Amino acid sequence: MTGGKVLITGIDGYSGWPLALHLLARGHEVVGVDNFVTRKRVREVGSWSATPIPSFARRQAAVRELLGREIGFHRGDLSDFEFVRGVLATERPDTIVHLAEQRSAPYSMIDVHHAVDTQVGNLTGTLHLLYAMREVVPDAHLVKMGTMGEYGTPNVDIAEGFFEVEYRGRTDRMPFPRQAGSWYHWSKVFDSGDVMFASRIWNLKATDVMQGVIYGVRTPEITDDRLLTRFDFDETWGTALNRFIAQAVLGLPITPYGRGEQRRGFIALEDSMQSMRLAVEHPPSAGEYRVFNQFDAAYSVNELAELTARVATEFELHPTIDHPANPRTEAEQHYYQPIHEHLPALGYRRTRDLEAVMREIFHDLLRFRRRLEARRHVVQPAVRWASPDSRPALAARAPPAQAAPVAPTSDDRPERSAA
Amino acid sequence: MTGGKVLITGIDGYSGWPLALHLLARGHEVVGVDNFVTRKRVREVGSWSATPIPSFARRQAAVRELLGREIGFHRGDLSDFEFVRGVLATERPDTIVHLAEQRSAPYSMIDVHHAVDTQVGNLTGTLHLLYAMREVVPDAHLVKMGTMGEYGTPNVDIAEGFFEVEYRGRTDRMPFPRQAGSWYHWSKVFDSGDVMFASRIWNLKATDVMQGVIYGVRTPEITDDRLLTRFDFDETWGTALNRFIAQAVLGLPITPYGRGEQRRGFIALEDSMQSMRLAVEHPPSAGEYRVFNQFDAAYSVNELAELTARVATEFELHPTIDHPANPRTEAEQHYYQPIHEHLPALGYRRTRDLEAVMREIFHDLLRFRRRLEARRHVVQPAVRWASPDSRPALAARAPPAQAAPVAPTSDDRPERSAA
Repeated sequence: MTGGKVLITGIDGYSGWPLALHLLARGHEVVGVDNFVTRKRVREVGSWSATPIPSFARRQAAVRELLGREIGFHRGDLSDFEFVRGVLATERPDTIVHLAEQRSAPYSMIDVHHAVDTQVGNLTGTLHLLYAMREVVPDAHLVKMGTMGEYGTPNVDIAEGFFEVEYRGRTDRMPFPRQAGSWYHWSKVFDSGDVMFASRIWNLKATDVMQGVIYGVRTPEITDDRLLTRFDFDETWGTALNRFIAQAVLGLPITPYGRGEQRRGFIALEDSMQSMRLAVEHPPSAGEYRVFNQFDAAYSVNELAELTARVATEFELHPTIDHPANPRTEAEQHYYQPIHEHLPALGYRRTRDLEAVMREIFHDLLRFRRRLEARRHVVQPAVRWASPDSRPALAARAPPAQAAPVAPTSDDRPERSAA
Repeated sequence: MTGGKVLITGIDGYSGWPLALHLLARGHEVVGVDNFVTRKRVREVGSWSATPIPSFARRQAAVRELLGREIGFHRGDLSDFEFVRGVLATERPDTIVHLAEQRSAPYSMIDVHHAVDTQVGNLTGTLHLLYAMREVVPDAHLVKMGTMGEYGTPNVDIAEGFFEVEYRGRTDRMPFPRQAGSWYHWSKVFDSGDVMFASRIWNLKATDVMQGVIYGVRTPEITDDRLLTRFDFDETWGTALNRFIAQAVLGLPITPYGRGEQRRGFIALEDSMQSMRLAVEHPPSAGEYRVFNQFDAAYSVNELAELTARVATEFELHPTIDHPANPRTEAEQHYYQPIHEHLPALGYRRTRDLEAVMREIFHDLLRFRRRLEARRHVVQPAVRWASPDSRPALAARAPPAQAAPVAPTSDDRPERSAA
């Protein structure tokens, strides 16, 4: 089974890169687009990836050398419609996996400009892709990355995109209400609206992925350090789990925000890649807008913190757990029961469990411990939801004077040349 | 009772201007913001207002002369955050009525650039206002103009913003699902999400107005032609009802799209102003995000067409009714039962009925018949929802060679000087 030629926007990112490797391994042709803005934005908040990641040209070279395969690449920005149309006209992909969006909730909450950039950038890229698809490849399948965070934490089960509603004696199938918790999460809600509408007026095929939090740094295809994907651990770009493990490695307290009873859906990187592949290989029919709740287990932040502390002891680390005031505005105690049936119906089977993956992450982070040490000041929260301007708090975080200097690798410098 | 100082963004527009007059008459202080982009965009599609409207400086002068009142004004664009913050810091309004958005569905559907401009422009203006409010006037009340079109046409009653849902044995109060029918209508959905979220994280007061289609060209405060508001009749900027009356005056067939059984909620201009005033004079509490379904009767497009034809005969006009193919993608037969209880609970009472207002419109349009004649080519549809580029169809509409030239008035030329 083949999804044919797959275009991945955001191929240089945390999940874009392992997805490229996974689809190559399954025999698909892969071509990518990126503007390297994630590398730039992570630098902007004073951080870097714990894993040293090569420049994109070196990534392509490693794939060529290790796998004997080519990954096509177009450097550019989805905010440029002519660029987007040109790439689709040149490549004529069967599937477009759209990952090229600003993906950090705290980043979107820094100040008004980050809020606007996030919503405008994400929305514009998606609209450009939709129009270019309609014009150039109307039969292609769009797989768009959304987030489970679009739904918020309602007091009822979370449906998989749509639900049957009875209201005042009548019934209808309607989109499940969205109640996002950051400007970033709202930007994904907006994308979902636009993709749903475009599918209807233009008869496009679309899969909208309500992605749970992804954990892990490895997939079976990452067989060499040159193939590593990025691992963010700072407050802005790292997930709670990533920060907890970094805190354990750094000898800092593990810091679930507030009461720590916030629950979210999680999935291992490898299983997220399996899910994306299933979406690619089983496109919906023309005009169908399909939603996947893509996660496989829900955990509370406290459960993550406790598991992190327990696994840490296997690595001779003995972190404490602290509960700082929650910088976010969110429910800290709530019901959480999202439905996830669409992917299992396509053959999805969980292959990894959290504890085993956590061991892998500890193993890798301990290898790159000096890179964490050099950026230990970026782990604790500075961006507050209630503040309209967190720039002063971000600027006040000073790098540790005592850390040994670490030689920057190619990911730590701006990308210079287009491939 | 007073709402104190009211800032109206989009004060130069169809409802902004009569709202200013209405609030002045009720003793409020009024200050406005506009960038005059509606005048520009209406020219862009080859049309103009049927009513000749003065430049904004002349509007201010007329208010001074006729009412002995001043309307403060800041010319500028909400896309400029420093401008928005500066206006709020200077004026420190008690209420902000936010009408400054691109308001045409067909305009948003012209091509990719109009789609992006609509969504990005509306979203950015709203975010800038929210951040500036949070920073400068956190106790002010935001009244934001949305649209009944956010809800689409579900097969159940449409709740007033929120509804009690029972799902899989549990219940919650959730936002009513949005299923908009154009990029423009989606932009209003996005605004609603952002305003709801900002109210929650920053404890702002907000009223989100799901506005029905407004009809009429007069309010009691419009006592002189210098106080007229605009009346658009072209395909892009005019409502169906406006176009039907223009068609009747021009001797063109009245053209309900498709089957014509599409139903929508309607309200008279005067009653919409009453509603806005009620919102202004009865602010919600801090942190409350309140939704009004602001309309008072639902009509099908066929009902509007038939009523137009009937009233036209009183003016010695004898239009026929034609059913062109629907250029939009929308349900042409559907259930439509929106709830509207919040405004009546504040004292709203309907004062006008459609047939009487229609007579007023005919009366005014016949006075300005030559302005309609000079633009008769812009009434029929050129923008198609299914097409990703309607610019050629728009460009193909040629002005009528036989029409007598009509002297342009100040509204037909670009605004030159800031007030």
